[in-house]
Amino acid sequence: MKQLQIGKAFTLLESGPVVLVTTNDGKKNNIMTISWTMVMDFAPIFAMTTGPWNYSFSALRKTKECVISIPTVDLLDKVVGVGTCSGADTDKFAKFALTPVKGKHVNAPLIKECVANIECKVVDIIKKHNIVVLEGVSAYVDKSRKERRTVHAVGDGTFIVDGRKLDRKNMMRSKLPAGL
Amino acid sequence: MKQLQIGKAFTLLESGPVVLVTTNDGKKNNIMTISWTMVMDFAPIFAMTTGPWNYSFSALRKTKECVISIPTVDLLDKVVGVGTCSGADTDKFAKFALTPVKGKHVNAPLIKECVANIECKVVDIIKKHNIVVLEGVSAYVDKSRKERRTVHAVGDGTFIVDGRKLDRKNMMRSKLPAGL
Repeated sequence: MKQLQIGKAFTLLESGPVVLVTTNDGKKNNIMTISWTMVMDFAPIFAMTTGPWNYSFSALRKTKECVISIPTVDLLDKVVGVGTCSGADTDKFAKFALTPVKGKHVNAPLIKECVANIECKVVDIIKKHNIVVLEGVSAYVDKSRKERRTVHAVGDGTFIVDGRKLDRKNMMRSKLPAGL
Repeated sequence: MKQLQIGKAFTLLESGPVVLVTTNDGKKNNIMTISWTMVMDFAPIFAMTTGPWNYSFSALRKTKECVISIPTVDLLDKVVGVGTCSGADTDKFAKFALTPVKGKHVNAPLIKECVANIECKVVDIIKKHNIVVLEGVSAYVDKSRKERRTVHAVGDGTFIVDGRKLDRKNMMRSKLPAGL
């Protein structure tokens, strides 16, 4: 995986792909599927809605670390599978044949099969709203991957695959951070 | 526009489309383009990142109301246009030939040209993080519209158009709210 400038990490999430979020509670790795995420800044600061109903939440709260991994459409059945079983009784890396890769800044693993990974630190937990605020500290993109289309959860059990890309950089120049 | 069961409104936002958010400050309508949104519950409760740097924010804070409108790809140039000028000196409905439609629960207008609209009340503003928490109170979908593909902002001036839709309802049945 090639390092991505951390200032560009928000572009991995802004379009709203379903993501995998990994944690390590000190004993074992776990993964959850999350589509309730939000970019909050170019910094990059992200929000994620989760809470005690997700088994990963206790590891997230305890370690204050996670990795956001961006899967592509060829991984959809693994993504849905990860989201419909629990780390309480399942080793999801083993069950779904995903490969944990050691990161640089956090103990939660990157996922080798994903097109991108963002190592994150928890900077706040807004209990009232079940919002976890994350700061991306290091980002990576697999440039060699052929399938690069991400998938967007509709919420009703269907998923929208990325279609064509339209360029409006010139129209938006005044609003873009430098270097993008 | 046909009413949509409010319990299904989160499905309009979960996939992460760029949206238009309307307000009315008591004197005039305004619109902003937002792609930093998040579903927070099936309730439906949504988060949006905004703040004083958006002219609409003062109307949002004062009236505690807005409408989230979902544009489709044929409206992309209007969406980018709305996002690159200010309501401080521009009547955006007039400039971009968008049609305000009176809602039922809020004074902020629906946008006729959009494929869906959600009337929302502000339920909280988390100042520390510039997060506005919204509750959808009524939702509408234009069933007659042919172009239904939404657009996802990457954040670098490019936009991903909806591609194919994949169905994993059976795999996800245990995780879906009743009726979806």
